[in-house]
Amino acid sequence: MKIRVTQENLSAALSAVSRVASGRSALPILSNILIHTEDKALYLTATNLEIAIKARVGGKVEKSGRLAIPARLLNDFVSSLPRGELMLEQTKKHALKVTAEHHESTINGADPEEFPSIPDEVPGETLSLDGAKLKEALQQTIMAASADEARQVLTGVFLHSEGVESYVVATDSYRLAEKKLDAGKVEMAHNVPASAMQEVLRNLDNNEEKVMLNLSENQAVFTLGTVVIISRLIDGKYPDYKQIIPKSAEATAEIEKEELISIVRVAGLFARESAGSVVVRVSEEDQKISVEAIASQTGENMSTAEAKVTGEGEASLNSRYLLDALQAMDSNKVEFQLSGKHSPCVIRPIGTKDYTHLVMPLKS
Amino acid sequence: MKIRVTQENLSAALSAVSRVASGRSALPILSNILIHTEDKALYLTATNLEIAIKARVGGKVEKSGRLAIPARLLNDFVSSLPRGELMLEQTKKHALKVTAEHHESTINGADPEEFPSIPDEVPGETLSLDGAKLKEALQQTIMAASADEARQVLTGVFLHSEGVESYVVATDSYRLAEKKLDAGKVEMAHNVPASAMQEVLRNLDNNEEKVMLNLSENQAVFTLGTVVIISRLIDGKYPDYKQIIPKSAEATAEIEKEELISIVRVAGLFARESAGSVVVRVSEEDQKISVEAIASQTGENMSTAEAKVTGEGEASLNSRYLLDALQAMDSNKVEFQLSGKHSPCVIRPIGTKDYTHLVMPLKS
Repeated sequence: MKIRVTQENLSAALSAVSRVASGRSALPILSNILIHTEDKALYLTATNLEIAIKARVGGKVEKSGRLAIPARLLNDFVSSLPRGELMLEQTKKHALKVTAEHHESTINGADPEEFPSIPDEVPGETLSLDGAKLKEALQQTIMAASADEARQVLTGVFLHSEGVESYVVATDSYRLAEKKLDAGKVEMAHNVPASAMQEVLRNLDNNEEKVMLNLSENQAVFTLGTVVIISRLIDGKYPDYKQIIPKSAEATAEIEKEELISIVRVAGLFARESAGSVVVRVSEEDQKISVEAIASQTGENMSTAEAKVTGEGEASLNSRYLLDALQAMDSNKVEFQLSGKHSPCVIRPIGTKDYTHLVMPLKS
Repeated sequence: MKIRVTQENLSAALSAVSRVASGRSALPILSNILIHTEDKALYLTATNLEIAIKARVGGKVEKSGRLAIPARLLNDFVSSLPRGELMLEQTKKHALKVTAEHHESTINGADPEEFPSIPDEVPGETLSLDGAKLKEALQQTIMAASADEARQVLTGVFLHSEGVESYVVATDSYRLAEKKLDAGKVEMAHNVPASAMQEVLRNLDNNEEKVMLNLSENQAVFTLGTVVIISRLIDGKYPDYKQIIPKSAEATAEIEKEELISIVRVAGLFARESAGSVVVRVSEEDQKISVEAIASQTGENMSTAEAKVTGEGEASLNSRYLLDALQAMDSNKVEFQLSGKHSPCVIRPIGTKDYTHLVMPLKS
């Protein structure tokens, strides 16, 4: 192996792939990054067996090769080097020599033949998605996915279609977020682990272009420019969530988003001992929304804001879930719907039905 | 108690005092902030028995009083409130009612009589120090204080005088930092806990004015504008450190600080398995300084930079201590002195003897 690359290109590719390489894996080879060449191009690949990320690096391959080098050291090292040209060479059996101005380093690696092989594509349909829209959809839904591995189906972000519409959905059964995705006419019912979607989101940061999504029955391949993210899919039937979205509301309030965030945040401080529970009330007579926290030991808090209200209603809600939902809204004003103490509260940006966020009521 | 204050003033005072209030103390009262009035002025006080901080808050005291209110909740709560006027009132026995636009909260507190009494001044000399100079001196020395309570005398920052000169010193026996302080003609030999000095430093952030320092045999009182920090002093004889500062050097190198930081940082990555140990060499013939790390498992690294060198020398040094020292230098160029494998390495900003940083050699 003999390759010329710039520190900037190599560092960018390392930051794209290295997070999935873990030193805590039972398989030591997975703490490495595979540095490999294909058709005179340089690639980096890392995997934790659930997710794999492969990045193409701009550079000049003078001699092809294949090395597995510890991810953490390589990433820290390259990001600490000054900008400019680097020479990557294989020395000894599995070692990488990196030469830069003022620096000459050799990093010992592992046998690259132990590295699992990663498919570049999977048999199945390939969709083209708008990168900016996918990014927004993930930002607005991913927080609602469950972290509890006991019910694995809820740890995913569900991509599915219904007629001509397609949706991105996540729920942990305490809250639910659904965003419409303009994916064109497709057939989808694919449940992608939220951890893989986090990597997609992270790599969408500086990439607003098209995302190619290749779906098979048990794998998804996202292609974002020079970065390819391959993930397994989660088995099992996703809950029929549409039925729990209320069709109508007993009470509706329109309110400035930032103001509601502020009062929910303050009330949440007083709700620590009651696991975040606050009571939200809307009143048509007062044209106000109020958020109240009562904590027997800590004290009590009542915050109010003006709102355009129709109907009367109240519900006990988790203040952290409310904050997550409000912070995901992309509008200045939000619509807040209550339908009795036992129905979910619905939050939407004003003026669109593309994004729906549900927060389930707490027993009070 | 009935007091009008602005959210801005109260929040600033809370952030000055609340860090020393700890929920982990064996004495539950110490997790509170004492809100008290003296001569129609409002004060906040917090203490961990070693350090106490008292801040005066601009506001209008309509009715005096004394309350002890949980520090964490009060701080989080006030900093979450919007800017503007707040009304603080005592309700119930030990509870504080805070009224702001849109918010009404009551926070339950503890019996203020349990709060330890804090002296405002101590019998002894009072010096006037330049705030900006004290800040710089602490920033350049505090990192060298020991975190190891087993040798308590080294956990302090030592203020002492010798003739007309005064110094700020810290050492953990592996490195030493000494900075001259223009304190005028004073008699000092006072060892202040580094944790108290951290609070002084933190509160000097937006305060470049005079600092009054009132010293008794076992206490120090720092007055920084509206904030007063009272600390116990550390007992025991401070080591006679002057004798270990080399009077001359076998080899001297002048080098760009940022360049040396860069190569030491890169070498340090390779030195993780050898506890940070790197070999620094200076060569008059090459006019270069080199930093080398050899880690049998990881690999190896050699970094070099141009330097103005007289003499030849090398030493094994801890790369983290080198980085700490270099990052504390306030000049673009530094002087690096070596005097054999067993003598401390001396680092100084070019053109001044006011600041001396020593790094002890490792056995190699």
